[in-house]
Amino acid sequence: MNFTINRSAFISQLNNVLRAISSKTTIPILTGLKMVVNEDNIVLTGSNSDITIESVISANDADNDLTIEDTGAIVLPARFFSDIVKKLPDKKVTIEVTSGFQADITSGSAKFQINGQDAENFPHLPEIETNKSVTLPNDILKEVIRQTVIAVSKQESRPILAGVHMTLKDGVLTAVATDSHRLAQRKVVLENIDNGIDFDVIIPGKSMEELSGMISDVHEDVQMQVTENQVLFIFGNTHFYSRLLEGNYPETNQLIPQTADTTVELDAGTFLASIERASLLSHESRNDVVKLSLKPSENLVRISGDSPDIGTVEEEVGTSALDGNDLEISFNPNYMKDALRSFGQATIKISFTSPLRPFTLVPTEDQENFVHLITPVRTF
Amino acid sequence: MNFTINRSAFISQLNNVLRAISSKTTIPILTGLKMVVNEDNIVLTGSNSDITIESVISANDADNDLTIEDTGAIVLPARFFSDIVKKLPDKKVTIEVTSGFQADITSGSAKFQINGQDAENFPHLPEIETNKSVTLPNDILKEVIRQTVIAVSKQESRPILAGVHMTLKDGVLTAVATDSHRLAQRKVVLENIDNGIDFDVIIPGKSMEELSGMISDVHEDVQMQVTENQVLFIFGNTHFYSRLLEGNYPETNQLIPQTADTTVELDAGTFLASIERASLLSHESRNDVVKLSLKPSENLVRISGDSPDIGTVEEEVGTSALDGNDLEISFNPNYMKDALRSFGQATIKISFTSPLRPFTLVPTEDQENFVHLITPVRTF
Repeated sequence: MNFTINRSAFISQLNNVLRAISSKTTIPILTGLKMVVNEDNIVLTGSNSDITIESVISANDADNDLTIEDTGAIVLPARFFSDIVKKLPDKKVTIEVTSGFQADITSGSAKFQINGQDAENFPHLPEIETNKSVTLPNDILKEVIRQTVIAVSKQESRPILAGVHMTLKDGVLTAVATDSHRLAQRKVVLENIDNGIDFDVIIPGKSMEELSGMISDVHEDVQMQVTENQVLFIFGNTHFYSRLLEGNYPETNQLIPQTADTTVELDAGTFLASIERASLLSHESRNDVVKLSLKPSENLVRISGDSPDIGTVEEEVGTSALDGNDLEISFNPNYMKDALRSFGQATIKISFTSPLRPFTLVPTEDQENFVHLITPVRTF
Repeated sequence: MNFTINRSAFISQLNNVLRAISSKTTIPILTGLKMVVNEDNIVLTGSNSDITIESVISANDADNDLTIEDTGAIVLPARFFSDIVKKLPDKKVTIEVTSGFQADITSGSAKFQINGQDAENFPHLPEIETNKSVTLPNDILKEVIRQTVIAVSKQESRPILAGVHMTLKDGVLTAVATDSHRLAQRKVVLENIDNGIDFDVIIPGKSMEELSGMISDVHEDVQMQVTENQVLFIFGNTHFYSRLLEGNYPETNQLIPQTADTTVELDAGTFLASIERASLLSHESRNDVVKLSLKPSENLVRISGDSPDIGTVEEEVGTSALDGNDLEISFNPNYMKDALRSFGQATIKISFTSPLRPFTLVPTEDQENFVHLITPVRTF
């Protein structure tokens, strides 16, 4: 192996692949970065056994300034290798493996010699052969992830809830996540997809978050390919593999109430600021709840929180519509903050039935496609 | 107490005082912020018993937009109070204490009620009566702190070394710090100071760091007043008090070698980058050292580091002058990195006597006023 490459182009691909590599792994070789040098490209691979990321650096892309003298393959300690490449003095770097598994890294007057491992010992990539393939607009996929991963369970008691349930049926992609206290459901109507393609998979929330971070840097559409136990996302010169969670996701459709006794419309951003203020105090009390009083009869919505040690807070909330019965309801402000943030600056509609039944938040525009559900807290 | 103030002006003074307040204190009232409202100003005080910071907000400064309706004093929980003020909705905030020790905080539609404490229970400020007062240019004081605090000891075994030894004699201010592995000494010739003023004090390194952070935000000169057990720095509308360390600082003058057998001149920034590369590997080995080989006979300086598990690194170092005997010397790269950073982008001269004797770094310009000394590591 012997190649010379533009250092900053190399670093940007290294950073991509590093996202999959953890120093805490039970499989020692997975702390390494696999580097395969072919005639006209370099393939970098990193994996933590849940996620595998593969990046192709092409000699045909002038930005890479890549000259390949000799092909070969090696696994190098990922963290060190990238730390070294990032600190090298010259704008180019040469990497050479002459014999065995020792790599010479040269840049300007600096020369490193690093111990590597046999690339043959690196776990093989899952093989993806499927006709279940859809193309997702980059922005839409990011939004779907952002709006659902917040509701993914962090508890280990029900592993299946650590995933986002993604289904494709009749051209509609539905993503659902719930930790049993709250639920987020986003639907997207996909255009121009082949007839008859459908799938029903559970993708680990962590994989979705990692994917979201990566596609933020590119602006290309993302191709999603689904098999029985793996999902592959392809964008730019990157392949992002994630294992799927096995098992049946709970039926969530009937959890979303279809009727309401009290509804309020308000600005998500302004309401978020009020909740953040109220939670300053509620966070200090044993049961972290804030109380919302809705009085359509007086056209008044008031939020309050208290902590016996510190004090109390009370605030009137501005609304653009308020209908139905008077209601007092208490909830965990963290759930509400997460939910409101997922709406951005939109106007939203919150629909309540009773103090103990879950309530829903939807954008006032496009109410069908995104719903967030929160279970209140009993305080009496 | 009853006043209304521009919220962002208030926040900036709160932030100042908060620097002294720790939530981990054995004296509960010191988690509080003392607020005294006078006829024409508000005085905020925070303290952790080592450092006390006092900030005066004047009604005469139009930026404060301060209206005082009623005087009074109270101690409020510092962290909560500042969190609340930072999150309030309006550009103004009104704070009112009607009876007892409960404060009403109102801004826009939000209203908080916070439990406070009697200001009489807050420890009294040290009284500073002294004629030992000097004025220090802001930039110079920051540089003095930056160049010496790095050598302050983090060990608790010799508490006196946790301070910076500051002396004023014959119009020369000298600051010295050492952790017994390294030493930093900075001298400043003060102009226009009163004849006969001298002092000899040890200021806790932590106080100096805190002070440095605060004077970075202002551009005014700093007045320094010294008494037997306190030092007071005055800048803008802020008083910064620190207790002094008691005891005798070790004699450091004779530690600095006056002769050299090998000297090298080089660019501090470039050398720092080489040390950072070499330390990537040395950090992983049991004894974290890098080796410097100086061969004036061949006009060659080479730095190297290794870690048996990971690999080796070797690099030639560019120099602008190299004289004396050939020498190999090993040192802790962290000490060298700290030292080089304290020189900024200057050209420096490093003077060695033998592999086991401390070596010195000075700027090639102005060699008298700053010297950093490092003790090498024995590797044989």
